[in-house]
Amino acid sequence: MPKEVITQRSVDYNQWYLDIVREADLAEVAEVVRGCIVVKAHGWAIWELMQRALDDRIKATGHANVQFPLLIPKSFIMKEAEHVEGFAPEVAEVTRAGGEELAEPYIIRPTSETIIGYFYSKWIRSYRDLPLLYNQWANVMRWEMRTRPFLRTAEFWWQEGHTAHATEAEAEEETLRILHDVYADFVEKEMAVPVIRGLKTEKEKFPGALRSYCIEAMMQDGRALQAGTSHNLGQNFARAFDITFTDQNNTIQYAWTTSWGVSTRLIGALIMTHSDDEGLVLPPRLAPIQVVVVPIYKNDEERSLVMAAVEQMTAAWKGRLRFKVDDRDNYSPGYKFNEWELKGVPVRIEVGPKDVAKETVALARRDIPGKAGKSFVPQAGLTERIEALLNEMQTALFQRALAFREAHTADVTSYDELKEQIERGFARAYWAGDTADEKRIQEETRATIRCIPLEQPGSVGRCVYTGRETDRQVIFARAY
Amino acid sequence: MPKEVITQRSVDYNQWYLDIVREADLAEVAEVVRGCIVVKAHGWAIWELMQRALDDRIKATGHANVQFPLLIPKSFIMKEAEHVEGFAPEVAEVTRAGGEELAEPYIIRPTSETIIGYFYSKWIRSYRDLPLLYNQWANVMRWEMRTRPFLRTAEFWWQEGHTAHATEAEAEEETLRILHDVYADFVEKEMAVPVIRGLKTEKEKFPGALRSYCIEAMMQDGRALQAGTSHNLGQNFARAFDITFTDQNNTIQYAWTTSWGVSTRLIGALIMTHSDDEGLVLPPRLAPIQVVVVPIYKNDEERSLVMAAVEQMTAAWKGRLRFKVDDRDNYSPGYKFNEWELKGVPVRIEVGPKDVAKETVALARRDIPGKAGKSFVPQAGLTERIEALLNEMQTALFQRALAFREAHTADVTSYDELKEQIERGFARAYWAGDTADEKRIQEETRATIRCIPLEQPGSVGRCVYTGRETDRQVIFARAY
Repeated sequence: MPKEVITQRSVDYNQWYLDIVREADLAEVAEVVRGCIVVKAHGWAIWELMQRALDDRIKATGHANVQFPLLIPKSFIMKEAEHVEGFAPEVAEVTRAGGEELAEPYIIRPTSETIIGYFYSKWIRSYRDLPLLYNQWANVMRWEMRTRPFLRTAEFWWQEGHTAHATEAEAEEETLRILHDVYADFVEKEMAVPVIRGLKTEKEKFPGALRSYCIEAMMQDGRALQAGTSHNLGQNFARAFDITFTDQNNTIQYAWTTSWGVSTRLIGALIMTHSDDEGLVLPPRLAPIQVVVVPIYKNDEERSLVMAAVEQMTAAWKGRLRFKVDDRDNYSPGYKFNEWELKGVPVRIEVGPKDVAKETVALARRDIPGKAGKSFVPQAGLTERIEALLNEMQTALFQRALAFREAHTADVTSYDELKEQIERGFARAYWAGDTADEKRIQEETRATIRCIPLEQPGSVGRCVYTGRETDRQVIFARAY
Repeated sequence: MPKEVITQRSVDYNQWYLDIVREADLAEVAEVVRGCIVVKAHGWAIWELMQRALDDRIKATGHANVQFPLLIPKSFIMKEAEHVEGFAPEVAEVTRAGGEELAEPYIIRPTSETIIGYFYSKWIRSYRDLPLLYNQWANVMRWEMRTRPFLRTAEFWWQEGHTAHATEAEAEEETLRILHDVYADFVEKEMAVPVIRGLKTEKEKFPGALRSYCIEAMMQDGRALQAGTSHNLGQNFARAFDITFTDQNNTIQYAWTTSWGVSTRLIGALIMTHSDDEGLVLPPRLAPIQVVVVPIYKNDEERSLVMAAVEQMTAAWKGRLRFKVDDRDNYSPGYKFNEWELKGVPVRIEVGPKDVAKETVALARRDIPGKAGKSFVPQAGLTERIEALLNEMQTALFQRALAFREAHTADVTSYDELKEQIERGFARAYWAGDTADEKRIQEETRATIRCIPLEQPGSVGRCVYTGRETDRQVIFARAY
């Protein structure tokens, strides 16, 4: 049943998003701190699950976590700005501290490339010091003008990996390992969000990078969301920050560096991939509460009967399922159903006196709202049934998102077709244009080339814009 | 064998501390960012283990994690400063952002009481909204003049819990639950650091708190380090930030709030409790690497022989022990022994060709340096032996620290005795003085009352300073 507190997606997708963030109690606009949010308990619990799953992969691929300072000398940022055309972050400046004006202001890190570059330059002397494989989990700040919870805020939370290598090949291998084994693997398996892995065009790549790889996901309104980027920085940053090493032939070389990051933006992607007009929908692997049990009773006698059954039932769940028994007395079952639907709990178990007598429970799965998703099942074998169902839902959400993306992706062979298709979703097209062409298309359509997919058809066609023959396809879309 | 790179404790304790931080590769002074440090991989890995063990306890006691903004409007801090006498943090101010002067500067949070108070005031309406039990893991900043890695830095990392309750009794219960079940339990069981649980005097308590509880640990130089504080804030902060609720009788009441925190300072406490002139000593439960295996060989043939044995041996360790096989070819075994001793790895296993033949290994325990801590043991049953040894070491470190504290704590009955004893460690004394007396003693001796222990002798004696009769004992010490 559509909920009054949530605007329907078909009516206003942007308002729907804000309603979900509010009603699922994920975050609140801070108001007194411009462009910032308070991440509330449910939102932060999702982020913690994301962090752990990402961190496991980051460590499994040989990286260690470190922590660099929040503040960066302004001169470091200016140096980068000079060096890298197009890099001009909107930043927050600390000009006073300890009651005095600072001789040189500090910038609250918008990203840590520069300060990390400074230390890498100190730490790296010889090829024996390489590779350096570090990551940090941190808050960063960019003074954005138009903000939306999770998608774009002044302060946000992310991980930023920064590595240094002896050869270009190693740096490229690292960049792709992160793209595949960390980001795509995490987003597809944990978030149940299918992604297209690709390379950014010259126009879209990170300023100063040799090559930027990305994973792109489709939201329910057909727009793209970049769910992670991994940059091969070549020797550009090493030159800017003098990161050199003595190689095996005793020659001084610039190191090859990479950087890669994903942020709390992924929570926005999660919401916009799976949720519906009833509220948040969470893939079981990232659900802070996977199962909620709502006991139903009318009097104390029924209460003890039901609660005894619930206790017995859930005894086996500890350590296997993340669950909550909602035994609040001052709220009705209907109120509770509504609240946990809004918050996206994958499975709801209802237990009343009749269920106790029949040794059954009512089971509702969040990904299929209403009666269609509700069934009555025996208490015997319930734990295994729920575990199997959670796995099934994890797969089903991925498949549904994949089917949606495929249904909203089309090959286009003319500029007119492209313009039409980007109203619906992704437009796949042969492309032989240049940066100026891309800019013109963006001005005219607000669509950009999201990526040059790593998987290419291996065939030849005519560029959708210039008509030139090419074997390269790209994905056009409007993006978050 | 004492190491040249580390100043002996008996020569210069402060320099010894800095040497340990550097040689164990825990942190580096940032230099280009005043008063800040870079926490390096080994240091951050220890902090992550601490965080997880603390976070488990914080959640087990019913709290949820949230995240409030890094920046706080300056007016919020000024309001607190007016309200709470003595609260005048040295802060860093953001006065420019997005290229423009800000109408009102922001402060980088020195602690989040004020901004959290603002939101609690919005969120709390009725007694049904209480208790509110939130915690956040965050970086905070205080513009300190004299800094030392981990012990006192401009930026540091901590958790800050902030709760609101309907009654004073509940707030007091919460304050003590955190002290006992979270902080003391964590510090004693995980860090193997014995603590004295106590109440702060009026002079030493958190400004604005009704009561401040703390746990105090003794470092190897006899000085005290406050390892955690838990404050019952009464209704003071609720008054300052207008945190009110409608109670069951429909009357508007101020909420009762608490706050509590521990920080990366605990890494300093860990170092100064257990480490020795050989380097860092870590309790096994907080050791990122619990066992290091150093294979010993002279040629390729021996290498394959030894590595095959090592592989077989460690196959059973995955998921049971945090271990590392140090198979670097470009470093000698002696170099490796030294490095892992410096880094405090609890157990070292050496395997050479003779060990393979005899089906033994050499085992060295870090808490007993040199030959005394080395033994030759069979490969059969090695996993269980190591697990048992790690448990034994965890207990032994705690017992050693406890014995040290007891040996350096004395009852004093005169001011002269007190002055003498605080050169050695803790002075336990009857106390009936007032704040002015405490201040005088601090000026004359640099010692403060660390706490009024919760465990009191239940007997009566004469105040060490005023001579008045009292049943209250306190602990005097110089403190970090």
